[in-house]
Amino acid sequence: MSATPDRTACADLDAADPLAGVRDRFVVRDGLVYLDGNSLGALPLQTPSRVAAAVEQEWGQGLVRSWMDAQWMDAPVRVGDKLARMIGASPGEVVVAESTTVCLFKLICAGLAMQRGRTVVLTEEENFHSDLYVAAGAARLCGGTVGVVPRARLLDALDDRVAVVMHTHVDFRTGFMHDMRGLSAAAHEAGALALWDLCHSVGAVPLQVNADGADMAVGCGYKYLNGGPGAPALLHVRSSLHEALRNPIPGWLGHAAPFAFEPSHRPAAGLGSMITGTPHILQLAALESGVDLWLEIDMAVAREKSIALGELFIQLVEDRLDNAGFTLASPRDPERRGSQVSLVHPKAYGIVRGLIERGVVGDFRAPDICRFGLAPLYTRYVDVWDAVERMGNLLSDGDHLDERFAEKVAVT
Amino acid sequence: MSATPDRTACADLDAADPLAGVRDRFVVRDGLVYLDGNSLGALPLQTPSRVAAAVEQEWGQGLVRSWMDAQWMDAPVRVGDKLARMIGASPGEVVVAESTTVCLFKLICAGLAMQRGRTVVLTEEENFHSDLYVAAGAARLCGGTVGVVPRARLLDALDDRVAVVMHTHVDFRTGFMHDMRGLSAAAHEAGALALWDLCHSVGAVPLQVNADGADMAVGCGYKYLNGGPGAPALLHVRSSLHEALRNPIPGWLGHAAPFAFEPSHRPAAGLGSMITGTPHILQLAALESGVDLWLEIDMAVAREKSIALGELFIQLVEDRLDNAGFTLASPRDPERRGSQVSLVHPKAYGIVRGLIERGVVGDFRAPDICRFGLAPLYTRYVDVWDAVERMGNLLSDGDHLDERFAEKVAVT
Repeated sequence: MSATPDRTACADLDAADPLAGVRDRFVVRDGLVYLDGNSLGALPLQTPSRVAAAVEQEWGQGLVRSWMDAQWMDAPVRVGDKLARMIGASPGEVVVAESTTVCLFKLICAGLAMQRGRTVVLTEEENFHSDLYVAAGAARLCGGTVGVVPRARLLDALDDRVAVVMHTHVDFRTGFMHDMRGLSAAAHEAGALALWDLCHSVGAVPLQVNADGADMAVGCGYKYLNGGPGAPALLHVRSSLHEALRNPIPGWLGHAAPFAFEPSHRPAAGLGSMITGTPHILQLAALESGVDLWLEIDMAVAREKSIALGELFIQLVEDRLDNAGFTLASPRDPERRGSQVSLVHPKAYGIVRGLIERGVVGDFRAPDICRFGLAPLYTRYVDVWDAVERMGNLLSDGDHLDERFAEKVAVT
Repeated sequence: MSATPDRTACADLDAADPLAGVRDRFVVRDGLVYLDGNSLGALPLQTPSRVAAAVEQEWGQGLVRSWMDAQWMDAPVRVGDKLARMIGASPGEVVVAESTTVCLFKLICAGLAMQRGRTVVLTEEENFHSDLYVAAGAARLCGGTVGVVPRARLLDALDDRVAVVMHTHVDFRTGFMHDMRGLSAAAHEAGALALWDLCHSVGAVPLQVNADGADMAVGCGYKYLNGGPGAPALLHVRSSLHEALRNPIPGWLGHAAPFAFEPSHRPAAGLGSMITGTPHILQLAALESGVDLWLEIDMAVAREKSIALGELFIQLVEDRLDNAGFTLASPRDPERRGSQVSLVHPKAYGIVRGLIERGVVGDFRAPDICRFGLAPLYTRYVDVWDAVERMGNLLSDGDHLDERFAEKVAVT
């Protein structure tokens, strides 16, 4: 490891950063070190006017005609096609709908139905809790069960009862990144479908879902994609499964002829059948804006920067805060790490809250994790330096032990 | 019936209208006669700035802290409580989520689960097609069946196998309004739960869901509530059912402690358990704006105007277009009619398309219905006069027979 960089060295890295100019395309308050883009991505500068156009021109002036004239009707598929380019899928293999949890519900039910004779949804206990909740709910309704096993034992549990293996690609707590290709292949070898949650991957790491064998996937619109609070989710299914696919929540917008008012549901062609109700047009406008910005970016360059930010963060913590009681929760190997650094500390909650007061926004994940997202489009090397600097000051001042942090209030 | 009013008489009615000033609080283009507020409500003037504030201040500046600081987390319940006032429910009995179809799915599954030993979801074949689709989907997953019978035979089919009776309160095609109190009582007498779809009721007619015996309900945010394209839906359940209620799509935002990361789903208290994923904050901002405007309005006054508009429309068609081949599809009795007038005509499609070209926006519902929504907050008596006038001109010019209307393209 090289010598500990100082702030000037970090500023030099920013000056040489090929993505430096991209930061200017986001709203980031002066002085704020925002390391929570993995929870809610920052606002692209171009987004307010695009949402305003959807509200004032398309809704206000175009009114109901905008379903056709402003292509509202196509929005879930159009934005899905753009997302397909980001995740290595083909046009027609991604749509946008509801939330990741509702989309997971649809895919788990559909997966169980496609895998007759197999009833188990297998996942790891380290998975995001909402994924565990909805898997249990979906399996209950679909006559299946959920197998929840420790990560290290998942492959042992992969037998011929397993219909679907569900993984979150990048662990929300630690940033640990699974081997999508290897685990998908293992699922296929056992006759199971590979379902991937890309919430902490899309916009964070390069993705090639088709090449890596993902059968189905969901992903979040409001984290690294910068699609705004409550952005709808991406839902991916590889095309060879489309014909067998059945939406467990069939609705008019997924009908082959929504305005024919047929008494029975006749699914739309392809993935359109997975749409249920009226698309959330205003959220889609914001999401499309974030995705459009991403499509101008070379993901390999973004990934390179993200790794460099992570390496810098870890080095600064290890060099400058080596007696502060932190343990690295994220993988040391950058190839296995998403775009975040997580640190375990017994006073993690107080540290995160104290840092927020000092203008560094990360978040706390129970029971003892400080989590710092390193969104490569708007995070600078000096932000990482300032975060570690202020964390050091906080710890030496002891503010993180303040009694106002005794009761843990949710930090999203 | 009094003498046929002329346009001056209609203008006089507008001058005397206690709601005349409310029209100025909406964006309505000069010269446009917008009679499709039952499909997509007009844009309230106050909404663009409220959406912009959610985007620019809350998201852009507040970032992830807005989940607490801007009360994003409470939005589904807060807006739900406001909607509860509009539909005659109590605080805590309404939340906002996803779409009406997804909410129906949740309530049908929950209803079947609460009614052990009963497996039938009973509804009428006249119901909105998405309701029929999702009922079939939900029943299939939940081990039930759907009984779809003609409206006139529904009560005969109400036996002790029926778990849930699902009605759309106001028929989307004709505007026929069901007797909520009578049908809910009949459902209860048979031991069934009464589930109401209020899509064409909320903001259109006075509602007292609790007094009228509704057990559960859904409603649309983007029609008469003016919540914007793709606004999320209202989901109502009377409080005495909350304890037995189980969300079939359990997710982290419906957990008692979303950030405790517990391995199993422990439902939030009350109706909060029916929330699944992250709320659609931008759509909620627009919806709340529309609902706030409604809460300033006396619904009895709005209903009186809505009926007067409907009576005027029917009279003008009957008096001035009596040989044009129209049949009234809506109830003649205003007490049984929602806030729309529907006319059957063999050339309905060409009429609706031809009217749009003449600045009158209604919509077509297959196979032969011209549908005109009479949103009382921004529709004037002269709009009704102009609509019928232009319809007469269209018919005498014969433009509705133009070959460009030969192929029916969806008119939303």
